[in-house]
Amino acid sequence: MASGATLRARPAPRRIGKQTVQFENPPAIIATGTVVGPLEGKGPLGHLFDHVTKDELLGQKSFERAEQMMLQNAAYTALNKAGLTPEDMDYMLSGDLLNQLITSSFSALAVGVPVFGLYGACATSTEGLGLGAMLLDGGFANHVMVATASHNRTAERQYRYPNEYGFQRKPHAQRTATAAGAAILAQSGEGPRVTLATTGKVVDRGIKDPYNVGAAMAPAAASTILTHLQDTGRRPQDYDLIATGDLALYGHRLLVELGRTEGGIDLEPVLDDCGLMLYGQDQEVGAGASGAGCSAAVTFASILKDMRDGRYKRVLVAATGALHSPCSFQQGEYIPTICHAVSLEV
Amino acid sequence: MASGATLRARPAPRRIGKQTVQFENPPAIIATGTVVGPLEGKGPLGHLFDHVTKDELLGQKSFERAEQMMLQNAAYTALNKAGLTPEDMDYMLSGDLLNQLITSSFSALAVGVPVFGLYGACATSTEGLGLGAMLLDGGFANHVMVATASHNRTAERQYRYPNEYGFQRKPHAQRTATAAGAAILAQSGEGPRVTLATTGKVVDRGIKDPYNVGAAMAPAAASTILTHLQDTGRRPQDYDLIATGDLALYGHRLLVELGRTEGGIDLEPVLDDCGLMLYGQDQEVGAGASGAGCSAAVTFASILKDMRDGRYKRVLVAATGALHSPCSFQQGEYIPTICHAVSLEV
Repeated sequence: MASGATLRARPAPRRIGKQTVQFENPPAIIATGTVVGPLEGKGPLGHLFDHVTKDELLGQKSFERAEQMMLQNAAYTALNKAGLTPEDMDYMLSGDLLNQLITSSFSALAVGVPVFGLYGACATSTEGLGLGAMLLDGGFANHVMVATASHNRTAERQYRYPNEYGFQRKPHAQRTATAAGAAILAQSGEGPRVTLATTGKVVDRGIKDPYNVGAAMAPAAASTILTHLQDTGRRPQDYDLIATGDLALYGHRLLVELGRTEGGIDLEPVLDDCGLMLYGQDQEVGAGASGAGCSAAVTFASILKDMRDGRYKRVLVAATGALHSPCSFQQGEYIPTICHAVSLEV
Repeated sequence: MASGATLRARPAPRRIGKQTVQFENPPAIIATGTVVGPLEGKGPLGHLFDHVTKDELLGQKSFERAEQMMLQNAAYTALNKAGLTPEDMDYMLSGDLLNQLITSSFSALAVGVPVFGLYGACATSTEGLGLGAMLLDGGFANHVMVATASHNRTAERQYRYPNEYGFQRKPHAQRTATAAGAAILAQSGEGPRVTLATTGKVVDRGIKDPYNVGAAMAPAAASTILTHLQDTGRRPQDYDLIATGDLALYGHRLLVELGRTEGGIDLEPVLDDCGLMLYGQDQEVGAGASGAGCSAAVTFASILKDMRDGRYKRVLVAATGALHSPCSFQQGEYIPTICHAVSLEV
């Protein structure tokens, strides 16, 4: 074995700081596709999504199949917009919330692109954007598709109870969004570019309540955002928007507090959360939205549009994930959480 | 949106063929750590693993915790051998079989390294080696840890029945190995190098029997291996060993047949399978081993040693994964499968 001293001699050229890489030729997000369920379609962003489904079953025999249809539809919508075919895609980076990522696997089967299965729970969108940008900037791909989805009916019955049980939800609970998003990253082309990626560490601050994932994930968001600012020398106000996804109401407030107490900075003026953007205040969804598809759909349909329209020049998307399983919860374990961030710039 | 024609103008420099990338500075596997359970320790490779546990609970309160202990132990063993600390690791790429990857998430929490969660079922080891090599060769990291594990007691009760039920197993069923493996890849240093990575597509040939995953995965192995040979212009005999993991007895035979019928080549002289190497013929484990930890432990402890000892100069490791979930099986879906391959050379 070579000694550590020898190995440290040659630093990786694209690394800055502890957890961040800077892209030499920042890949562009050249096209996206988004599909959401009926409730999400009635929300304030409803008009921005490519497709709003009439119901949550989509004529399929199971909600799981419906979720797969949504992800495939998002993928093909993005391909159509870019004028590309699956054969043009070098890789698909895909993950979802369901056990063994069946949504992603069956969708990758249908799309027919070499696939890396990712798991980052609701942080999958930025895990995929960060890794995808590395594959492009590293010279391993011309086009990469990043795709993720969640479905209220499949996730709720896997993690909690089927909706049909009418289980009464706590006010701080979030609603798993029925949403799918796909983005195509390219070495060349037009669109907001992924300039930096900060990869998260797993964080656990002793939260056990799976109905309170916003609070569990806020410390992970604080860790990754503060590390990102430290690594890059940027300040919160260097961003037009820092969008977490999906802390919802209580996690969002907690993150503002953690920014002040742990980082000595005020995130509030630029901070928003995908889980707060997806639904309207009149929609009775508890503290807001969650689900892997939430940050993907909101980022791909709304935030990127605002960037193309010139409203935002520089956005940090910091998607957050709660990595527990029903098994780990039942065994009394704390909820491990993560946040991956990417800087998008026009 | 830019037109497809513009986008195709600039090919990715490291791509060869349809699904393969060639590394410019092939990363070295500078150290590994492996931990296996008692049955695996009694097998023909038992003396090669770093640690053999006395039982499958390791003094923990749950088998899930025991699996996490094994993965952490494998990770720290690899770090110790390399003379490195977690702070030296830029990324951990980790996945496992358990729902929501709790083994990997809790282990990444303990090790404290920025982590990309991967899901490739029993193909996780080569999914991680391929992606990890890209992060290094692309200039995004100096050191990457690839880690994966499986545990007989946790996987069997999640996918099938708890062992205590005494469920009678079919002769073509494979035994989920209790095994964990971690490997450290570095830009510089000594060790077998990852020279090529062929990323798999999801394959489904209509197998529904979750006790027959070897047969389900064999077509994925054939697809990736044949594509690899086509992409690289190599022949089977250019490899000293092509090691699948883990097709076991029946999947292995089927792959030999598929090589002949679909590729017109004879893989048999160089083909072996991690699922056939782990246990002895006297160990009554059905058709052989399976589990994400199987190909990792066999590759990291045995194949890499044979490479360092000069027995093998060039090995293709083609780990295979069955991507179904108990839910997709119960819903009558076919088993989607995948195979990711990496070429290792000294």
